[in-house]
Amino acid sequence: MTNGSAATLPLSLELGWPSYQQITVDRWRGGQHEQLQDTIAEEVPISLIYNGVPHVVMLATPTNLEEFALGFSITEGIIKNPQELLSARIYNRSNGIEVQLKVPEHRFQGLADKGRNLTGRTGCGLCGASTLKQAIRQPNPVSGSLTLSAAELRSALTDIKQHQKLNQLTGAVHAAAWAVPGQGILDIREDVGRHNALDKLIGFLLRTGKDLSAGFIIVTSRASYEMVQKTAWVGITLLAAISAPTGLAIRLADEAGLTLIGFARDDQHVVYTHPQRLTHNH
Amino acid sequence: MTNGSAATLPLSLELGWPSYQQITVDRWRGGQHEQLQDTIAEEVPISLIYNGVPHVVMLATPTNLEEFALGFSITEGIIKNPQELLSARIYNRSNGIEVQLKVPEHRFQGLADKGRNLTGRTGCGLCGASTLKQAIRQPNPVSGSLTLSAAELRSALTDIKQHQKLNQLTGAVHAAAWAVPGQGILDIREDVGRHNALDKLIGFLLRTGKDLSAGFIIVTSRASYEMVQKTAWVGITLLAAISAPTGLAIRLADEAGLTLIGFARDDQHVVYTHPQRLTHNH
Repeated sequence: MTNGSAATLPLSLELGWPSYQQITVDRWRGGQHEQLQDTIAEEVPISLIYNGVPHVVMLATPTNLEEFALGFSITEGIIKNPQELLSARIYNRSNGIEVQLKVPEHRFQGLADKGRNLTGRTGCGLCGASTLKQAIRQPNPVSGSLTLSAAELRSALTDIKQHQKLNQLTGAVHAAAWAVPGQGILDIREDVGRHNALDKLIGFLLRTGKDLSAGFIIVTSRASYEMVQKTAWVGITLLAAISAPTGLAIRLADEAGLTLIGFARDDQHVVYTHPQRLTHNH
Repeated sequence: MTNGSAATLPLSLELGWPSYQQITVDRWRGGQHEQLQDTIAEEVPISLIYNGVPHVVMLATPTNLEEFALGFSITEGIIKNPQELLSARIYNRSNGIEVQLKVPEHRFQGLADKGRNLTGRTGCGLCGASTLKQAIRQPNPVSGSLTLSAAELRSALTDIKQHQKLNQLTGAVHAAAWAVPGQGILDIREDVGRHNALDKLIGFLLRTGKDLSAGFIIVTSRASYEMVQKTAWVGITLLAAISAPTGLAIRLADEAGLTLIGFARDDQHVVYTHPQRLTHNH
């Protein structure tokens, strides 16, 4: 704690942990050797510390960390609204980044009690779960009058690549984008981890008080259980994933009232649940 | 515990948790609607319980779970050799699968002590880590006389798709394959999670007493820190990933003496560290 320095967002190169680096690599292609500059994505250990007690270390792209901390704290059920994140301070360390978070005492007690219930566990995998009973957190059903035309979805899918700035450099990071019908993609967050990208985006949306019923989310990854859980948890009604959903994700989306779209790419998409929000005018 | 049933590997459909399912979906392509059968990969909460105490819930493909438990227990440093996994029993539950593992008392105490050091944490993210100091586990340097020709690497990369049986059905799961120069791909494990696929493969290799210095691993994903860490942890000297490595993965591979190859696909590959094990005869 002695050699740390506080910083506010956006966390960037000056803090010492870059989100990408250039290195020289040896590439073989068609039997031909070439030395070239390669831009590689960084992943940095990010320790989230609540009220002074370490909770978790995530490997993440070291950008938008206050948004990440807010999104994670909400979607993992640690706090109930953005106002409960009383402060977030970011400290650069030699072996990663510490995010010191302050939450109300009763929320911290909730977190601490969960841990104390389980003597001996060290924890990893699904956050906050060591038993099957805790594993699947059911969001409240989402509702909202959002409708989206297939043409608007296609248009947002076409646009997303140009917003993926870090991926343009590295080809190695996921994105989560916020789009509103009639306005297209308004914001995007990127991370080596797809859950992190989504938590960053959700943190941003909550922090800036966006109307979450007005838009939808596109993720450049598969739709696993956790992607659906996090999206529905904050009441967003439509999630489009560029790749496949899992069976568990589909069942959760179905129960949560969320419209889940998969394989959303090029001129195609597959609607898995609650198709009423997506209109197709031939 | 009353309505469970024990089973031995391979865990398959009869246990009630399938690794994939067929559902009917609505696909739009080029503006045309079609209802079709889609085969979707399942992800199932898998609770790993050591000496009766829940440790973690992973979302995984419910196959090869004993191998998964062994690989995870080794690569996460919970036990030091395969013989320390004294027993593994698999119980089908209504909300997932419990894997009951028995390890020597001193290993269990090590796990328990780690948890008790940290009052209040519930844990997720990097296994066994809540502080930055714990985050990066440095493997011992690997050594071994493996050499591999670029032609053999290419050949294994060409072959891998035909071994990805679950991915052929679902298009949604990762694979980790074991290959030996001169013999090509000998074994493969698949999972919705790339770490899980690698842990299953490593569990299989350890369980069957394979000579880990004789071969190499191909993963159909990016090479993140954890993929390099797990591979080097058991002394395997070469990891080829179909997609990009992260900076942290490259640095860890460099320090661990592991040959890390990325973008290994079609007629190309990029060598990031310790190139001496890969020969290029023009």
